[in-house]
Amino acid sequence: MEDPSLPVHRRIVEDNGGEIVGVPVDRHGMDVGQLRSTHADGVIVTPAHQFPLGATLAPVRRAELARWARRADAVVVEDDYDGEFRFDRQPVGAMQALAPDHIVYAGTASKSLSPALRMGWVVLPARLVEPFLAARGPETVSTIDQLALADFINSHALERHLRRMRAAYRRRRDALVETLAASPYDLRLDGVSAGLHAVVNLENTSLTETDLLGLAASGGVGIHALGDYWITPRDRQGIVVGYSRPPLHQYPAALAAFASLLAPPS
Amino acid sequence: MEDPSLPVHRRIVEDNGGEIVGVPVDRHGMDVGQLRSTHADGVIVTPAHQFPLGATLAPVRRAELARWARRADAVVVEDDYDGEFRFDRQPVGAMQALAPDHIVYAGTASKSLSPALRMGWVVLPARLVEPFLAARGPETVSTIDQLALADFINSHALERHLRRMRAAYRRRRDALVETLAASPYDLRLDGVSAGLHAVVNLENTSLTETDLLGLAASGGVGIHALGDYWITPRDRQGIVVGYSRPPLHQYPAALAAFASLLAPPS
Repeated sequence: MEDPSLPVHRRIVEDNGGEIVGVPVDRHGMDVGQLRSTHADGVIVTPAHQFPLGATLAPVRRAELARWARRADAVVVEDDYDGEFRFDRQPVGAMQALAPDHIVYAGTASKSLSPALRMGWVVLPARLVEPFLAARGPETVSTIDQLALADFINSHALERHLRRMRAAYRRRRDALVETLAASPYDLRLDGVSAGLHAVVNLENTSLTETDLLGLAASGGVGIHALGDYWITPRDRQGIVVGYSRPPLHQYPAALAAFASLLAPPS
Repeated sequence: MEDPSLPVHRRIVEDNGGEIVGVPVDRHGMDVGQLRSTHADGVIVTPAHQFPLGATLAPVRRAELARWARRADAVVVEDDYDGEFRFDRQPVGAMQALAPDHIVYAGTASKSLSPALRMGWVVLPARLVEPFLAARGPETVSTIDQLALADFINSHALERHLRRMRAAYRRRRDALVETLAASPYDLRLDGVSAGLHAVVNLENTSLTETDLLGLAASGGVGIHALGDYWITPRDRQGIVVGYSRPPLHQYPAALAAFASLLAPPS
């Protein structure tokens, strides 16, 4: 697993008898070279937009990861949870095509439409289809919802929706960047070229995750500590902030509330 | 588990480390007396309409089952999969109220609305809520679908729908009964006072499950052999036939196709 990564993914692996090995992430995504020295049978990666740090897996590492999967006869799960939202760069293709016999592509409607839909999909190597269905058990997604989504895709309504939302989220992202630039602290933002969240680095400040989470809780602001995502705990202090959730008319107020957490005590 | 019962339920229990003990079913439902002699920690029952045999658990056995659950500190799962559809008798209340600390009530929209919705619900003893949520993992049902169902219930539209469907399914059931009465064979039908399926007993005929399934497959008729549901295989030959699935305008043709399977060779 990428380190840091989503704790719930690690829990699912462990609940199913897997053993977790963390592989560090830098600004080019997972350090695939270090993956090779593990004896992993599989890896879960977020190549388009590393969660939570926000890096895009570098092209040379994508090729290296596909090569590793073939050589080790391993399974790569490509978690493309927010790949529809890219702001400052060219779209990144799915890795799956690089080694279709070894890479499982996983997508979701949670970011592009709504997490309320509980819809996701996987593209599996043929040999994994039957084992996957057996492990999943009965279908959980309403057929009616699936048909509605199919119609939404076929009619190009999803494409139009994504275009509109991409512009809307870019504006939210820009407002977040401006808000933080106006802070008296030296706050670096990571992972803002894509997706619906960013990491606010506290390294060059006197701010700590603990302090900010305490202030956020009493101020009614929902943020996460970077500390919650490490496999091997690090000193690096940071805040993970999502900017898609407040309704549009409440976004300025939400941003102001967040900014007030970052104001030096007067 | 009731014997016979749904194989997929047994598989779920076994996949989660449970050991299956079958308890026979007669025309008053599960033989609760025999349950006492097992050392089971839990039981899955279909008291309103035993699946597949169709019996209603007798009042004295319901009381006995609740008593057993309290004494053995066991969990009873009351699978009320089609309790909304009762034709010839008074509604039967849920058992859950008899021992709310030990009985899990499980309902579903699969029969009352559509299996395509993938919606069900459980009423749990308070101490089981947290363990249940942990075992279930993330929510699988769309919030939007849940809100739509809540609105459907609160507006009394579900009640009206059930009243209409109860009458419609009763007519289907009656047509099935008439069709079988016209057969030259002595076919007894079980479980027809409720629900959307019945068991056609082949005991007093020369017909066998194997023969009928073969004919059904070549005739495009979907039926199930009673043999698929036993835990301890029995000689008793029977066919499980659901009558809710064909669209209304195709029901007479479906019934005729089923009747033709039961015609003696000419």
